Amino acid sequence: MIDNDATTARLLVTCPDKPGIISAVSTFLFNHGANITDFDQHSSDAHGGTFFLRLEFQTPDLDCSRDALRNNFATRVAEPYGMQWQISYASEKKRMAVLVSRHDHVLMDLLWRTSRGDLPATIPMVISNHDDLRDEVERFGIEYHHIPVTADNKAEAEAEALRLLEGRVDVVVLARYMQILSPDFVSNYPHRVINIHHSFLPAFVGANPYQQAHDKGVKLIGATSHYVTADLDQGPIIEQNVQRVSHRHSAAELKSLGQDVERQVMLRAVRWHLEDRVIVDGNKTVVFVK
Amino acid sequence: MIDNDATTARLLVTCPDKPGIISAVSTFLFNHGANITDFDQHSSDAHGGTFFLRLEFQTPDLDCSRDALRNNFATRVAEPYGMQWQISYASEKKRMAVLVSRHDHVLMDLLWRTSRGDLPATIPMVISNHDDLRDEVERFGIEYHHIPVTADNKAEAEAEALRLLEGRVDVVVLARYMQILSPDFVSNYPHRVINIHHSFLPAFVGANPYQQAHDKGVKLIGATSHYVTADLDQGPIIEQNVQRVSHRHSAAELKSLGQDVERQVMLRAVRWHLEDRVIVDGNKTVVFVK
Amino acid sequence: MIDNDATTARLLVTCPDKPGIISAVSTFLFNHGANITDFDQHSSDAHGGTFFLRLEFQTPDLDCSRDALRNNFATRVAEPYGMQWQISYASEKKRMAVLVSRHDHVLMDLLWRTSRGDLPATIPMVISNHDDLRDEVERFGIEYHHIPVTADNKAEAEAEALRLLEGRVDVVVLARYMQILSPDFVSNYPHRVINIHHSFLPAFVGANPYQQAHDKGVKLIGATSHYVTADLDQGPIIEQNVQRVSHRHSAAELKSLGQDVERQVMLRAVRWHLEDRVIVDGNKTVVFVK
Amino acid sequence: MIDNDATTARLLVTCPDKPGIISAVSTFLFNHGANITDFDQHSSDAHGGTFFLRLEFQTPDLDCSRDALRNNFATRVAEPYGMQWQISYASEKKRMAVLVSRHDHVLMDLLWRTSRGDLPATIPMVISNHDDLRDEVERFGIEYHHIPVTADNKAEAEAEALRLLEGRVDVVVLARYMQILSPDFVSNYPHRVINIHHSFLPAFVGANPYQQAHDKGVKLIGATSHYVTADLDQGPIIEQNVQRVSHRHSAAELKSLGQDVERQVMLRAVRWHLEDRVIVDGNKTVVFVK
Repeated sequence: MIDNDATTARLLVTCPDKPGIISAVSTFLFNHGANITDFDQHSSDAHGGTFFLRLEFQTPDLDCSRDALRNNFATRVAEPYGMQWQISYASEKKRMAVLVSRHDHVLMDLLWRTSRGDLPATIPMVISNHDDLRDEVERFGIEYHHIPVTADNKAEAEAEALRLLEGRVDVVVLARYMQILSPDFVSNYPHRVINIHHSFLPAFVGANPYQQAHDKGVKLIGATSHYVTADLDQGPIIEQNVQRVSHRHSAAELKSLGQDVERQVMLRAVRWHLEDRVIVDGNKTVVFVK
Repeated sequence: MIDNDATTARLLVTCPDKPGIISAVSTFLFNHGANITDFDQHSSDAHGGTFFLRLEFQTPDLDCSRDALRNNFATRVAEPYGMQWQISYASEKKRMAVLVSRHDHVLMDLLWRTSRGDLPATIPMVISNHDDLRDEVERFGIEYHHIPVTADNKAEAEAEALRLLEGRVDVVVLARYMQILSPDFVSNYPHRVINIHHSFLPAFVGANPYQQAHDKGVKLIGATSHYVTADLDQGPIIEQNVQRVSHRHSAAELKSLGQDVERQVMLRAVRWHLEDRVIVDGNKTVVFVK
Repeated sequence: MIDNDATTARLLVTCPDKPGIISAVSTFLFNHGANITDFDQHSSDAHGGTFFLRLEFQTPDLDCSRDALRNNFATRVAEPYGMQWQISYASEKKRMAVLVSRHDHVLMDLLWRTSRGDLPATIPMVISNHDDLRDEVERFGIEYHHIPVTADNKAEAEAEALRLLEGRVDVVVLARYMQILSPDFVSNYPHRVINIHHSFLPAFVGANPYQQAHDKGVKLIGATSHYVTADLDQGPIIEQNVQRVSHRHSAAELKSLGQDVERQVMLRAVRWHLEDRVIVDGNKTVVFVK
Repeated sequence: MIDNDATTARLLVTCPDKPGIISAVSTFLFNHGANITDFDQHSSDAHGGTFFLRLEFQTPDLDCSRDALRNNFATRVAEPYGMQWQISYASEKKRMAVLVSRHDHVLMDLLWRTSRGDLPATIPMVISNHDDLRDEVERFGIEYHHIPVTADNKAEAEAEALRLLEGRVDVVVLARYMQILSPDFVSNYPHRVINIHHSFLPAFVGANPYQQAHDKGVKLIGATSHYVTADLDQGPIIEQNVQRVSHRHSAAELKSLGQDVERQVMLRAVRWHLEDRVIVDGNKTVVFVK
């Protein structure tokens, strides 16, 4: 859904809020021939809060190299304002690994949309603790790695996955991967492991959320996509949505209806991550949606 | 929104599921000249489950009195099938008391809609632990009773409320009443006290749910209407809804946005109760919506 | 999403409304050992209107053959009440042909869900006026027929399609088939050709609805699934939905967002048709949803 | 829902898009001691399109008077870039007149919310072609003017309304005002007359849209709020929303359900206008929502 991928760059900034930031950033870019074509910002508090910025700029008339732009921005703007920042280019698609167990509904949607160009990513590999989905994945010309996980080999399995991923991926998507990742694993990809949880968190943390929802008689079921942190089911929420249900739906039907919500929520979260629309703010996210 | 109030009766049934119930009920009504104009049913399990039925029938051609109809139904249909049941008449509007503290957004919507005939009820009184809303209520020609509640007089305050309510109301609506009712109070109106909770239960049980939602960074806030039971915030859920929010909303703004959801959810729950559309099934509800 | 497919039968009825219908139908089924497990009805007007009924019943304890049940129902119930009716069995899945041009987003969702058992259908063939999607379809083991359509050969092309379909399909789904079907073609499958139109009908009838929506600056775009009749874009509406958009979306982005709505709306309409939940009432539909 | 009303100013800009605008505006404000606390922009096309900007800034540390700020902005920024622009102050609430006929559902919501401070406006008067709602309005301490309109006196009636409004209002809200305003009337308040139309425009233009919706059997009904132009029901759309309905709803029930949508849509449109969030772009709007 993005035009001009060849010329679009994105700048993300997080820094202490104070007057003059927008002027400094926009003037810097203007002076280097960059044309700002999208601009969004947020301040958690104008007095002593944190300032978040996402902007898109067009690069055809840049007066310097990408490296020079980075270096200049670092010294002239980022340093004086104490910024955490990144510049990325739409033409450099993020490399996305998918971890999955046996449910294929989220996985297939990601593969399909990526293959059609609807998601701006490449998928270098799928890793699973089961071998069931190999054919479905390899049909897309994507590597499939089966790494069985048992109570005994968990550490070795994670180590093997990390070796496969190393240097080859920018983001790891858990498309209903039913193993808990260790804090050590997660620390290799801070705010770059995205999970889909099959409930409207923080309701129904833990196992079998659709059964929990059925037992409680809730009138809406939901799904939550979040970054994975050391604290299970508690990482910063990227996106959530719900679906109306009624007394007529069995727990099995809630699960079936819920899978469509999971897919939809995961798709949005992954898309926003791939388009550099998400900035983590402590245990929360700032999401600059279109 | 109901036509033909003058001639419409409603039958609610709960009984063990087994073959022949629909035939028995519909044939009984047909034989007495009642014309079924709406019919909805649900079975929790066709084998050994519970059967729930709601139907509307028209009374102009009844061949017997209302009392005779009840007596005949009891002996010929309800008893053989082990039914809990009730027959009500749309022309006999339910009497609804409203308990409120200081927030008037739910209260005013109930008063206004009832006064316009949009809600099929009468409101014999409003009871509050504060005197703030007296003028707004009395303007509608409705009694306003101020019963202050302190840590010391809680039992007496409830006793006074029960005396006021006795014999004059069919349903008690807690329109943001910030006092916890004792199990004893609730037991006087089983499944007839309706509360609005300002969160998507079971998330954010307890105090200050909008602040909790803000701290968690959820992307949707919600409200839940439920019957009050002895177990606080845990009674059978009647209706829930949500509203999309973002990082841009402060806790105060979540509260403001949430109040519109509260009002909408409460309105639906109250309307459905008044139209005899809700049957309690253990800790859950069956809601026969249009 | 349906349990007990092996034993579930469905009865659809349309007839002039008058007292006694529910009693007659339910008593007939009870007397033959059929256990009603779902029941829904609608009357366009209790006085002189049309009555619509959908019920599910379980067949294990039937006291007669399926043929006998049909014959008895016809003479004892349907004829006296002037009913149009059908009995179908969940175990006999409907055969669904898909017609498509070049857009594969709706098609692939139908193929994928059918192959997983999520849609209760078989797909004997896909017919297209282009050859583009052959590989994608044949991968599912489904026949793909390429029938080019030009201004000159339209009648022959339709005749060829009809020959292919004859006796092999129960319903024809137009998954973004960009040719207008002749009234003659449609008359072969009355209320059994389902189309997805990429707008919220009746707004934006005609070509390029997303461009029209963009030009008008609407804040919601939608999709409409309807039965095809001789009157283009005017057949009975089965389902509609919308998606919020803003000034930020180009016409191309509206199209991309709209395709997800199209897929979702088409999926619901097709599912409801396959589960015998839709009854046509003149230029409108009665849809008995769960 | 806005904090810091005492110190918040808003700048709206429309101009031909070209590089440097953001830098020029933000640097100007920074240099005058204004702290930008919200910033949103849109470009219809980065090459030769139109640029739209809305920002909020805080005024406590301004180094000049409001007049000087305007004058300086005009000469140093607005003129070089060919801008249409306005600066407004949150502390100067807009004066809103409401025109109404007999339906009070939209009117009452506006009065109620304004009186509670939920809408940032004052209401100097309500004008109606009927006298029915006088009591409801005067209860809020608001002037009520009854100006009957007939086929013969239409011009005089409009002239009288214009005299009443002159100099006393910033925006005119048609809260279900059932008279068509002349182009001459509208030209006095360009893009400052807001109407609520009881359908999802452009579907069901004209009289009796709920009946039209019922006749068509649509599955969603809607409402549209738009600025009034000389072309009836065709002015720039500010907001739209829909509500799911079914075959069970009569035309009267569609109307009743629709009124809640009308109220909700109108509330949003009015709020956005009062908060200077809407910029008209030809026959469309740019709406900078939170």
